[in-house]
Amino acid sequence: MPTHAAQRPRLTQASAPLTRAIEVRDEFGAARSITIPAERPLTIFVDKRELVTLMTLGAAPELLALGYLRNQRLVDSIDDIESITVDWDVQAAAVKTRRGIADFEARTAKRVVTTGCGQGTVFGNLMSEIDASALPAATDPGARLSQSALYGLLAAMRQQESTYKSAGSVHGCALFRQAGMLTFVEDVGRHNAIDTIAGWMWLHGVEGGDKAFYTTGRLTSEMVMKSAQMGVPIIVSRSGVTQMGYETAKRLGMLLFGRATNRHFICYCGFDRFDAEPEPPRNPV
Amino acid sequence: MPTHAAQRPRLTQASAPLTRAIEVRDEFGAARSITIPAERPLTIFVDKRELVTLMTLGAAPELLALGYLRNQRLVDSIDDIESITVDWDVQAAAVKTRRGIADFEARTAKRVVTTGCGQGTVFGNLMSEIDASALPAATDPGARLSQSALYGLLAAMRQQESTYKSAGSVHGCALFRQAGMLTFVEDVGRHNAIDTIAGWMWLHGVEGGDKAFYTTGRLTSEMVMKSAQMGVPIIVSRSGVTQMGYETAKRLGMLLFGRATNRHFICYCGFDRFDAEPEPPRNPV
Repeated sequence: MPTHAAQRPRLTQASAPLTRAIEVRDEFGAARSITIPAERPLTIFVDKRELVTLMTLGAAPELLALGYLRNQRLVDSIDDIESITVDWDVQAAAVKTRRGIADFEARTAKRVVTTGCGQGTVFGNLMSEIDASALPAATDPGARLSQSALYGLLAAMRQQESTYKSAGSVHGCALFRQAGMLTFVEDVGRHNAIDTIAGWMWLHGVEGGDKAFYTTGRLTSEMVMKSAQMGVPIIVSRSGVTQMGYETAKRLGMLLFGRATNRHFICYCGFDRFDAEPEPPRNPV
Repeated sequence: MPTHAAQRPRLTQASAPLTRAIEVRDEFGAARSITIPAERPLTIFVDKRELVTLMTLGAAPELLALGYLRNQRLVDSIDDIESITVDWDVQAAAVKTRRGIADFEARTAKRVVTTGCGQGTVFGNLMSEIDASALPAATDPGARLSQSALYGLLAAMRQQESTYKSAGSVHGCALFRQAGMLTFVEDVGRHNAIDTIAGWMWLHGVEGGDKAFYTTGRLTSEMVMKSAQMGVPIIVSRSGVTQMGYETAKRLGMLLFGRATNRHFICYCGFDRFDAEPEPPRNPV
C-alpha cells in the first residue's frame, strides 16, 4: 500500500444532487410530491479521447470512471493513472494517464460483448481472461462465510441509509469482509455500482480474496464475472440468478447466495465455502 | 402492410430451453431443486460482419436481432433485410441485407452512448434524433388511456403465463392497444425485451401511435427514448422512474405510469393523455 500511496491518482470530488422531487398523481386522483433518483450522462475521456458515456446516479463519478477502466481491462495498473477530473457542467470525466494506453484502439475495437442488463459493454475478451482469475481455496477461512456472518451482512444492509429507501429505482452494491461493511454505493445501473466498488478497491489497494459482494441486482453472467475479476469469491444478492451467472460461479468455485433477506436465502453453489448453521424447521414434528 | 408482406424478411424460428433446474440449499440446510432462467450469448453478424454480442434468454432471437438493428438505427427499413438466420449451435444470428448497410463503419463508430442499466449500448446520436419522433396529439383517442383501461392492462399482465413466474430473474415487456395485449416477451435484460417488441412491430408493420408499453423494469432514459423512437406515447411500469426517464417523457409529452400493480399506480407525467377515474378515498370522512 505505501507504493500505491505514492502513485495514487488525483481525483476530484465532484458532487451533484442524487434525487429530485416531482409532482405526480396517484390512483385517487390526488396530486402529491415524490422523490426520484437522478440519472445523468457521464462521458469518460482518456487522454482526451472519448471512450464511453455512462448513465449514472452521480454519487461517485471518479470511482466509477476508475472502476470502469479497471473492469474493462483498459488500464493494467492504477499506477498508470495520473488524475481523474469530473466536471458536471460538461458531464465529463477526464482521465489522464501517466504514459498513455498502449493499443488503445485495439483494446476498444471489439465492440460489445455484453451483459445481463443484457446490453452492457465489455471491451475485449473478458470471458477468456476470467478463467485465469485466482480465487483463494475454499479452505481459506477468509474466503468462506458462515450462516451467522451472512445474517450479519444482511442486517448491515437493512440498516444502511440509501437513495433506494428515499427514491427507489437504484441498485445498491456493497463490499464486505465477513459481516463488516467496507463500502457501499448506489447507481441507476448495477454494473455502474459494481464498477464503482472496483474503483474504490483499486484506489485503496484492497484485495478481493477475503471479501464478499452484496448486490440488490440479479446475478447475471457479467456480475459474476466482474466479481471473479476482482478476486471476490462470495456474492450475495437480494435477487435471483440466471443460468450463465450460476454456471460461471459454479465453474469458478464461487459461493453464491440469492433471494437473501432477513434470515432467508438460497445458496446456489459453492457449498464447500459455506458453514451452514441451519435454521430449525418451521413446523417441527 | 401488403407491401411489407412482399418484402418481409425470412426468419428462422430457433428455439432453446428457457429455463433449467438446479440443485440448491436453503436456510434450513435442505437441498431442493429450483428453476432458473437461461442466459446465452447471441452474436449478431450483419452481412458477415460481427456487430454485437447480446446476452439473452433466447425466447425470440430473430425478433431481438431485428429490433436491435431497428432501435440502434443501423437499418432504416425492414425492406432492407433479406433474412435472419439464428443457429444456437454457434450462438449466432446472421443478418443478410438486400443491399448492404451504407456507412456501416460510421454508424457503429461512436461507441457507446448508454442507458439505465446503466451500460447498454446505443450507437450513434440517438438522443438528438428523439426530438424528431412524432407522437400523436394528446387529443387523439388512441393515444390516451383511461384509468379503467389501465386496470385492464394490469389485469392482463397478471394473468400472463411467464418464465418470471416459474424462474424469476427476467424482465417482461408487452405491447397493448388500450387494455388488449398484442404481444409479450421476456428476456434477461429489459433492453432486449423492448428491442424484441420493436422487431415484432417492424415485422408485422404495426405502428406505435395508438399503443402502450408495459414493462416490469424501471423507466430509465433509454427505455423512454426507445418507446418514443417506436412512436409509442404511453408507458406503464411495475417499477419506478429515474430523473432522465421522467424528464425525457415529460418533454416529449408522453404518459408515464410507475409502481403499477392491481389498482395502484403513480402517474408521473402526461396528465393530459390520462382519463382519471379516481378511486374513492380509502378512509372517507
